[in-house]
Formats: sequence, C-alpha cells, structure tokens
Amino acid sequence: MEDGTEAPSGGQRKPLLRALGGETLEKPPWWLMRQAGRYLPEYRALRAQAQGFVEFCLNPGLASEATLQPVRRFGMDAAILFADILLVPYALGQKVEFGEDGPILEPIAEGSGIAGLGRNGFSRLDPVYETVRRSRAGLPAETALIGFAGSPWTVATYMVEGGASRDFRRVKAWAYRDPQGFGALIELIVDATIVYLSGQIIAGADAVQLFDSWAGVLPEAGFERWVIDPTRRITARLKERFPTVPVIGFPRGAGFFYSRYVAQSGVDAVGIDTVVSGSFARDQLQGRVTVQGNLDPVALLVGGRVMEEEVRAIRGALAGGPFIFNLGHGVLPQTPPENVAALARLLGEPVDSA
Amino acid sequence: MEDGTEAPSGGQRKPLLRALGGETLEKPPWWLMRQAGRYLPEYRALRAQAQGFVEFCLNPGLASEATLQPVRRFGMDAAILFADILLVPYALGQKVEFGEDGPILEPIAEGSGIAGLGRNGFSRLDPVYETVRRSRAGLPAETALIGFAGSPWTVATYMVEGGASRDFRRVKAWAYRDPQGFGALIELIVDATIVYLSGQIIAGADAVQLFDSWAGVLPEAGFERWVIDPTRRITARLKERFPTVPVIGFPRGAGFFYSRYVAQSGVDAVGIDTVVSGSFARDQLQGRVTVQGNLDPVALLVGGRVMEEEVRAIRGALAGGPFIFNLGHGVLPQTPPENVAALARLLGEPVDSA
Repeated sequence: MEDGTEAPSGGQRKPLLRALGGETLEKPPWWLMRQAGRYLPEYRALRAQAQGFVEFCLNPGLASEATLQPVRRFGMDAAILFADILLVPYALGQKVEFGEDGPILEPIAEGSGIAGLGRNGFSRLDPVYETVRRSRAGLPAETALIGFAGSPWTVATYMVEGGASRDFRRVKAWAYRDPQGFGALIELIVDATIVYLSGQIIAGADAVQLFDSWAGVLPEAGFERWVIDPTRRITARLKERFPTVPVIGFPRGAGFFYSRYVAQSGVDAVGIDTVVSGSFARDQLQGRVTVQGNLDPVALLVGGRVMEEEVRAIRGALAGGPFIFNLGHGVLPQTPPENVAALARLLGEPVDSA
Repeated sequence: MEDGTEAPSGGQRKPLLRALGGETLEKPPWWLMRQAGRYLPEYRALRAQAQGFVEFCLNPGLASEATLQPVRRFGMDAAILFADILLVPYALGQKVEFGEDGPILEPIAEGSGIAGLGRNGFSRLDPVYETVRRSRAGLPAETALIGFAGSPWTVATYMVEGGASRDFRRVKAWAYRDPQGFGALIELIVDATIVYLSGQIIAGADAVQLFDSWAGVLPEAGFERWVIDPTRRITARLKERFPTVPVIGFPRGAGFFYSRYVAQSGVDAVGIDTVVSGSFARDQLQGRVTVQGNLDPVALLVGGRVMEEEVRAIRGALAGGPFIFNLGHGVLPQTPPENVAALARLLGEPVDSA
C-alpha cells in the first residue's frame, strides 16, 4: 500500500472498496460518521488521557486506538481516521482551541490575514500519518481505512468566522466583496489539503472523504465557485497521484445542488445528508457515483422499530446500486452503544429480508 | 377591514396584495424579513424602553412603533407586525425568556408535558391585536400590513428543545418514537395559530406569513407530516373564515421539498431562502404561487455593487411573474441602514433597467 496504488483483484478486495469501485454488493458495506467518539465509554476513557483535543488528535497512540475502538466493538467495514478538520488551519499556523461549546479560532482577517499562514510548512501534521500507519496495522484485512479532511469552503468558514457560525456573515461578506482575496485563502487550503490527504494515502488510507459540512449555505454561484471548484481541484490532483484511491465527497445540505456536485466535482462517491430522499439519490445520483448514507442520527439514538424501519427504507431504495450504508450526519454523543450493536446485526441480514 | 374580507378593486389595491393575488407588477412590491429590528438606531432606542422582550412585544405602543419605523424610513410596500413566533408558546402557558444568546424555554417533556398547556385560553395575546390596530392606523393607504406566526413544526422545536438547537434530537426523537403524542402537541399549536392569526386578521392584517425556520431538518416523511400537513390545516381554516386574505408560507431550507410544499400546503405565496436558485423558483414554483425572496442578507450587509448585481439577477429571474422582493432570511443586526436605503432606491427603478 506504500504508494496507494495496490489493487487486489475482484473477490479479495475489501467490501468498502468494491462498493466505491461501483459494484452493487448483496450486503452493502457500512460505517458511521463519528463512529469513534463520545458515545463510547472506551473513547471517553481514552480521551481523558490527553489534555487538549489537538494534543489528543496528534498523539498516534491515542488517536489510532480511538480509530480502532468502534471497529473492534461493532465490526464496521471501514475505520475512519480519528482526527479533526481543523487540524489543517492548525497546521497552517492558525491558533485553534476546542472549548466546551465547540472550536475557537483566532479569526483570519479579510485582506492581509492569510499572509502569515503556511510559512512553516506542514510538519505539524506528521503525527497524523503515524496514526494512519498504526490504525492500518491494527485493522482486519477486510476492513478499509478512510482518511479525511474538511473541504476548503467549510474549513474557510471556521478560519474566518473564528468558530461555528449561524449566519456566516464574515466569510460570505469576504467572498462576496473580494472573491480574489478570498480565493487566495481557498487556494491555500486546497494546496494544504492535497498535501495532507496525500500523506494519509501514502501512510495507508484506502480512501479519503472530504467533509463539506457547510456546503448548504451558499447560493448557486457561490456553490459552484467555493464548493465544487475547489473539490474538483483536490480530486483531480489526488487522482493524478493515486488513481486507484477513491474520493468520497460529503456536501452536507447541498439540496438542489447535489446533482451538479456529483456531475462536476470528480468524486467517486457522494455522502447524502438526512433530508435527501432515497428515490432522489437512486434516480439522480446513483447512476453516476456510489451513494453513501443516510440514516438520521436521531433514528439511531431512538433505536428499536423506528431505526429498523428507516434502515429498511434506505436499503430498499439504494441497495440495488453501488451503496455504502452510513448516517446522514455524525453519531450523536447521547446514542446508546447497544443501538449501534443492533444496527450492526440488522445490516448483517441480506437486504431483501432486512 | 373589520372582517378581513374587504377587497378594493384592481387598480386601487395595495401592490403587495396585487402580487399576492397573482398579478405580475412592473415594479414588484418589496419588504424585508426583520425589517424592524436592531440594525435601526431608532429601534434600539425604542427597545430600551421596555425591560424584557416579551413585555416589549406585548406593549402595543412600543410594538406598533417598531412595526412602523422601517416603513417610515424606507417606504416598503408592507409592514410586518413586530412580534415573535414564541409568543404562541408563551400564550399557551410555557415559560419563555429571551437571553443574550437566544430564547430559553422550559422544555415540554415527551409524554405528559402538554397536559397543562392552553388551559387559560389565549387572552395573553390580546395586546398583539391592539398592536395590529395601531399599526394599521399608522400606515399609508397603499402599504400592506402582514401578520405572522411560526409554523407548528418550528414552534414545536423550540418548545421541546427549550431553545435553538443544532441537532434537534429531542424533538425529532419524540416525533419518531411517538408520532401520536407529538401529533397532539402539533395539533395544539395548529389550533392556537388559527386563533392567533384570525385575531390578527380581524384586527387589520392584510395578509399573514407562516415562518417555518426549521422546515429543512426533516426527511421526506417528516416534512409531509409535520411541515406540510399542519400548514395545510391552518391555511384551510383561515381560507374558510377569510377567503380573500393571502397566506405566505416560508419553509426555510425546504430544498427538494419546495415544489411539494407549494403544491400541497394551500399557501398563496412561498418565501424562498437564499440558496434557492432563481431559475428553479421561476420554473417550478412561480407557475403555482407568488414567489417571495431571496436576496442573501449578507449581500445587503455588504451593499454596493455586490448587492446591485444580486438584486438584478433575482429580479431578472423572477420579476416576469408574480413576485415580491424580499431577503432569503432576516436582516442582520450589523447591516448599515444606508444599504437598505440604497436597496429602496434600486427597487424603485423599473426591472428592465435595474
């Protein structure tokens, strides 16, 4: 896997990679966004061993253990690297802290704000590649390892707003007022993301996912310019270097623009959020790419028959084509782990009787 | 206007009502969501005269003055009643407070939580009807007065979550686990909303708008059951009593489901949020209802050429059919009032040269 181009032949490939390659599997592979995290008692115990969250993410021993925990317990078809999308701004030299109520960044100022970023190279993230290597080594042969990064638009929202936002007024105002200056920030993130994901692939990631959590706040022109275009540049560059490594895009909330994203961004698979209907995804997206999603995390939290019925409906709509079962958003911290165990059992059943 | 059924003939009708009636106007009428509010210095001075926000909303002298301020300054084609969607839970007997970071409610518990609600009738909102009367009396003859309420789903999210939410897990969990019990809460809000909007119409509101700010977080089946169906029941009941009073629905974030909302909810006009493209609204919505929207509030905040170009694009797409110019979300408190003045001038120009 050293150069990311190894591709075992048909029958032996990992189920996740087969689905990402366009195969329709009788038992679709599954994993869950935020499958490693606070809902697991073993995660909380691990997390207590590091002071800050950045330190936790950059400790290969702890982060690889966090990566492996859910697979050990539930047997998903993929592990996802334990890290955070804000490690990229951190590596670029921005001050990033994780408080009780979410991340806090020293906001990048419109105009001269990006001048000091990225001066010191990108070595701050070297420990992440070691996490990938250790995670890879700890996984069963049939289990894929997914690397990830935030998409440039979403990462930029945090860098400019200084944290989570309700109105995105600073970042949008910058993008509207000075698209060239804002474009330079996006460009910086695009380049950093290519370096970062390449490093993860070289270290052993089988596939990578781009999380665009705030793709849904931009009107049409902004969506094309700040969501689709940077994504396309990243996928194109990764495909040149690692032609067999699939890229999953997750433009959460893209709504109307999902079709265009799938047609133009160059991704191999698309993550659909909780409000995307199965019929739309089947008819409009699955013909072009593998679809991944989209159980409502609240249905997983509720469990029981509610979850069973939702799972049945999603598989009924999507399991007839290339499909990876997942949530439509991350696992909620309040989720009972036994519900995830029940989901694992449910997904072990063939689709037609599920 | 006492019974809300007066309808002056063609040429004399208020421009907003003509547009809501399906006419295509050479100069489309306009108003802005949150046009009364913190971005206006005269509003901030007024607001300082009352202790709490609920007291402010329920003081007809202050609330009617807040309603009239923006029209006096900018000459919009409509005033919107100054009030808050959480006055309905307040009137039902729930404890509602407005803090620095948003509203705080004593959350309704799943199960028995609604038993005590609505016991004392609905007289707590009588001052709102007086605000409507005073606002009506203070408006120019050509200016419409819009009454409003929150849609049942959105109001329920606040009632169950106890405030703003990021994951909506309490309210969705209740709706998923116990649709009948949750349906009783929705029913209670539907009935209260009919009483409340009827009172506003009788007091002189020319039209009413239902704000469904969180319509975009529900998957397909939930959208039909908790967004469309309660809206349809409200519009049907209002139409029985006040056949000539138009209803505007604003299912913010409805994305994929806008077409269905327009086809099934019974509204006369639909508010579109900032991410809805003009071509979609023109081709898919405007054939059925009047379209209202959808300048990005951040473009208004930025002003200048950014705003001008966005306004031109929106009018270019939508002014060929029944259309009301508005924002895609509320005015941001940081908006310079002079940008709203510039918008008023811009909208005074004929569409083809705008």
